[in-house]
Amino acid sequence: MVSIPAGISTPHIMIDVAQLEKNISKMAQRVASQGLKLRPHAKTHKMLEVAGRQLDSGAVGLTVATVGEALSFALQGVAKIFIAYPLWVDESQATRIVELMRRAKLSIGTDSVEAVQQMSQMLGEKAAKIRLMIEIDSGHHRSGVRPQDAVAIAQAASAAGMRVHGVFTFPGHSYDPDGIDAAVNDEFKALAEATRLLREAGFEIKRISGGSSPTAALSDSSVLTEVRPGVYVFGDAQQFELGRIGFDEISLTVAATVVSRHEGNEQIPRRVVLDAGSKILGSDRPSWATGYGRIVECPDARISALSEHHSTVLWPENLELPAHGTRLQVIPNHVCQAVNLVDSVLAVHPDDSIEVWDVAARGLNY
Amino acid sequence: MVSIPAGISTPHIMIDVAQLEKNISKMAQRVASQGLKLRPHAKTHKMLEVAGRQLDSGAVGLTVATVGEALSFALQGVAKIFIAYPLWVDESQATRIVELMRRAKLSIGTDSVEAVQQMSQMLGEKAAKIRLMIEIDSGHHRSGVRPQDAVAIAQAASAAGMRVHGVFTFPGHSYDPDGIDAAVNDEFKALAEATRLLREAGFEIKRISGGSSPTAALSDSSVLTEVRPGVYVFGDAQQFELGRIGFDEISLTVAATVVSRHEGNEQIPRRVVLDAGSKILGSDRPSWATGYGRIVECPDARISALSEHHSTVLWPENLELPAHGTRLQVIPNHVCQAVNLVDSVLAVHPDDSIEVWDVAARGLNY
Repeated sequence: MVSIPAGISTPHIMIDVAQLEKNISKMAQRVASQGLKLRPHAKTHKMLEVAGRQLDSGAVGLTVATVGEALSFALQGVAKIFIAYPLWVDESQATRIVELMRRAKLSIGTDSVEAVQQMSQMLGEKAAKIRLMIEIDSGHHRSGVRPQDAVAIAQAASAAGMRVHGVFTFPGHSYDPDGIDAAVNDEFKALAEATRLLREAGFEIKRISGGSSPTAALSDSSVLTEVRPGVYVFGDAQQFELGRIGFDEISLTVAATVVSRHEGNEQIPRRVVLDAGSKILGSDRPSWATGYGRIVECPDARISALSEHHSTVLWPENLELPAHGTRLQVIPNHVCQAVNLVDSVLAVHPDDSIEVWDVAARGLNY
Repeated sequence: MVSIPAGISTPHIMIDVAQLEKNISKMAQRVASQGLKLRPHAKTHKMLEVAGRQLDSGAVGLTVATVGEALSFALQGVAKIFIAYPLWVDESQATRIVELMRRAKLSIGTDSVEAVQQMSQMLGEKAAKIRLMIEIDSGHHRSGVRPQDAVAIAQAASAAGMRVHGVFTFPGHSYDPDGIDAAVNDEFKALAEATRLLREAGFEIKRISGGSSPTAALSDSSVLTEVRPGVYVFGDAQQFELGRIGFDEISLTVAATVVSRHEGNEQIPRRVVLDAGSKILGSDRPSWATGYGRIVECPDARISALSEHHSTVLWPENLELPAHGTRLQVIPNHVCQAVNLVDSVLAVHPDDSIEVWDVAARGLNY
């Protein structure tokens, strides 16, 4: 892992470019060796510099979550974009989607007859060019329909003059230490069932899309045609604590400074406070996490509490507390949240040169 | 509460300007009637339009958390700023603090001899003009020293040619349904004790600063000279669930759209999914909260899960699920996080006219 550049203010997000490139290349090779396409989710990074490296390594296009993210990448030249989200297209969305279709080949998720009809009504004959992807609920119980409900949506699309291109799911329940294998199994089963039913009903299903970062490594082409991992480019404390990656594979950290230091006593905990709080780390903390992130320099330290600009760190009893002003690297729990809190990051190259990369699609929630 | 303006894209943060002004005026009157000064925390809103209304209602200055926030407001003409944070001043901070001091009267928090000496060394003779505020730990056990440790810091400040102006605390443990009265008591006791010890040691203590939004209403001038509430301008689901405010006092909501809708069965929960996720609501969820926010139109609905662009809402069994495309207003759990995720908000006036207010100090983490 690169060290914190001298002279920067903290807290600051920094990226180890060499490690980022290793992560991108490793996933590209693994996915290719599984006979799958890679359509990485760009909501994690929102940066052209990262998207460009993914596309250069063979990604077939990008996945995004919003029309705004899609436009940001399309305006920067990305030619194939999948909005893996069940959009409800209103008038202002319709105008932007038309703009988007002038610049990129577009697929859009849907999980209801109503949303298909709305899309068709709002976009008119232009809707025919969209590749519709039906979202299947594989057990996460967020958006997505049961496999047996996919056919009605495909029929509504046909009736509205739209094209169903494929099916997708997000096995979000894979974000559990004990749930990964089961989630992969659920994902395959649900997508296989939906595909079978749709094909039996006469629909040509070209794309079968799955795969979160935890499950991507377990995917294969017996069911899927592609995967959409996102977090793998950076890694984060969640992925580490799920056992999917090592500390040394993490390419993004938050440089932070010890601003407060307390030896503690029976009543008061022994702790240091860093200047990186939830406004740069994000507040995500799954129930199984050890804390609100991890510290590179001290893996046994625990971030026990997070305020907006403070992280409270319980230091191992057998180690001396770091001095005031010490700089440490914090690994966020959920890197997608951290990146979305800053307008730019420091990209540190192996020769210690630094670039500032804009988080160009930051905050584009619609 | 104002309704969602037609034609806007969702998710979008909207402010009810009339309610905002009521909240500002009510707190100003209450604090004045308690014989206290009001130095509201601007980290909540980060907007000049809100700060201006606070100052016009008699606030004596602003509180902020970072040098960047302070600079943002100072460059827009705010003349008195308190950085209520134990800064560790490095070279780049020093340059910016000097710039800040050209534009505003500045107080800065500290909780260690080391940080005082560092500040003095970095700022040289300019350090003498800073009003140092010693942070006291009143039970939250984040930053701040025990009252008996304040004197050593004040002595170090004197030795370094700096001026101690007062003491402050953040009773963060007031954010608990059962902890408010105890937290107020802890706050008074810790500040009174620190003040007594500092005065006995010969230090003139002019400012005694306390008060989170939950405790501000319970404060009085027997110990404090001022309070620094932040959240009161908008309110949020946390404050509502703590019993401090009513739904009708909340002035900020996130306009969201039903994008997915599922009647459910024995295996699958009955739910709708809104397009407002953690990237606009923030992910804060205290253990005592009912969910990840509240829905204005259906107080009994529960936001059971939050992804980056989805909130999963369990709808009351006895009520029909809202239709696809229905627009609802979501009250974030912690409004400071929500505001910090967007570059601008829609300010809706009583005559339905709309202004776009910039969140000018957004993301200024250092």
